[in-house]
Amino acid sequence: MYLTSERCLDDGVVERSFTLGEIPGILWTPVSASASAPVPLILLGHPPLGLGAMYPRLAGRARQAVADGFAAATIELPGSGDRPRRPAAEQARAELRRVMEAGEPVGDPLIDALVLPLVDKAAPEWRAALDALLSLPGIGGPVGYSGGVISLGVRLAAVEPRIVAAALFAGSFVPRAVVEEARRVTIPLHVLLQWDDEGNDRQAALDLFDAFGSKEKSLHANMGGHAGVPRFAGQDAARFFARHLK
Amino acid sequence: MYLTSERCLDDGVVERSFTLGEIPGILWTPVSASASAPVPLILLGHPPLGLGAMYPRLAGRARQAVADGFAAATIELPGSGDRPRRPAAEQARAELRRVMEAGEPVGDPLIDALVLPLVDKAAPEWRAALDALLSLPGIGGPVGYSGGVISLGVRLAAVEPRIVAAALFAGSFVPRAVVEEARRVTIPLHVLLQWDDEGNDRQAALDLFDAFGSKEKSLHANMGGHAGVPRFAGQDAARFFARHLK
Repeated sequence: MYLTSERCLDDGVVERSFTLGEIPGILWTPVSASASAPVPLILLGHPPLGLGAMYPRLAGRARQAVADGFAAATIELPGSGDRPRRPAAEQARAELRRVMEAGEPVGDPLIDALVLPLVDKAAPEWRAALDALLSLPGIGGPVGYSGGVISLGVRLAAVEPRIVAAALFAGSFVPRAVVEEARRVTIPLHVLLQWDDEGNDRQAALDLFDAFGSKEKSLHANMGGHAGVPRFAGQDAARFFARHLK
Repeated sequence: MYLTSERCLDDGVVERSFTLGEIPGILWTPVSASASAPVPLILLGHPPLGLGAMYPRLAGRARQAVADGFAAATIELPGSGDRPRRPAAEQARAELRRVMEAGEPVGDPLIDALVLPLVDKAAPEWRAALDALLSLPGIGGPVGYSGGVISLGVRLAAVEPRIVAAALFAGSFVPRAVVEEARRVTIPLHVLLQWDDEGNDRQAALDLFDAFGSKEKSLHANMGGHAGVPRFAGQDAARFFARHLK
């Protein structure tokens, strides 16, 4: 892991850009982190739109996490931002646009093609990032995962023992194989669902929630579309992490 | 309204029993209520099992409400506790027991017979209680409704303008007519659902949540059966009332 830049934001947050091999990432920590006891880490998931486009929302979530006593980090997804395009993924996304513009239903084979290769490639990368991040001074466990892509969150929750709690955003297509994988998840979960999310199948999200094997899982459904998550919903998620990471 | 007894609980809560005509009720206020500015009121809904049987849980919820800066009150439901039995309701409950023991589905006519007469009789009584309670010194508006019977909460939310927010517990049968009534509700709602509630139809609860006309409505689903509401779910509901009644 190479740190490529470091700056101090105005509210006591240190923001560091890094690369892990060819994968860019960002780490946010409290100014005092290295001096005091290690803080828990929250991995910030995001849709595959590129870290540059996602930066304002990610930085907002990261500042909140740091204010709550955590470090936060994220890495670029395969095929997004400055990373090489993946032809099969581009083709699947073009087909999705065509299907949605034509008002046709989005079938399982297309959902699989959109999501499964992304998760298969991303999950090991996020685990490698975890190795590197947890070796830095000032950053300890336990680790939480927050946000989308929800299928990546499910995979990481199922296979990565250092992740002990996850706040998942039900805002993208979920392959049936991921619903099966969810049955193996046992960590506490906080699932956020926008009831009228235009890009999301509500019933699929409810089925996924039902499938999780976790004894403690909460579904918080709120009104509005994909980007209309109310402010109090973010505060509920923050309290979830405070309960489980501290 | 006649006050029949008054006592001071050990945590600064005054508990007063009253009767409103033939209907018994209980009011909880902060010790300092009459001296200071009027506090908002939360009506505590409950299943039709009698105030005596429900007292420990109601008193616990009332103490929390008072600690949060509210007054809390409840009245006996028709046909419960010391109030005269209602033969039609008794017959419907006996039929429900028979149907459930036989493992048969609970049909719409039985759900209607169980719930609609109860709501039709109870709603005007709760509104009359509101008239009396709000005339007491130290108790002001706005008013919240909390808990079950959820169909009574829907009716009150639809017809009683002094109720400005409701935290509803999806833990009982809901007639189709009540789902239609829910479309007219516009106040902020916080709906609690126990995902594996043995006495509740999950899909009916989701349909009811979907039907509400409110722009702000949140569904909080948690694991466990009817009585297994986790502690943090109660805290979420408390924050909902703090947002809307203060």
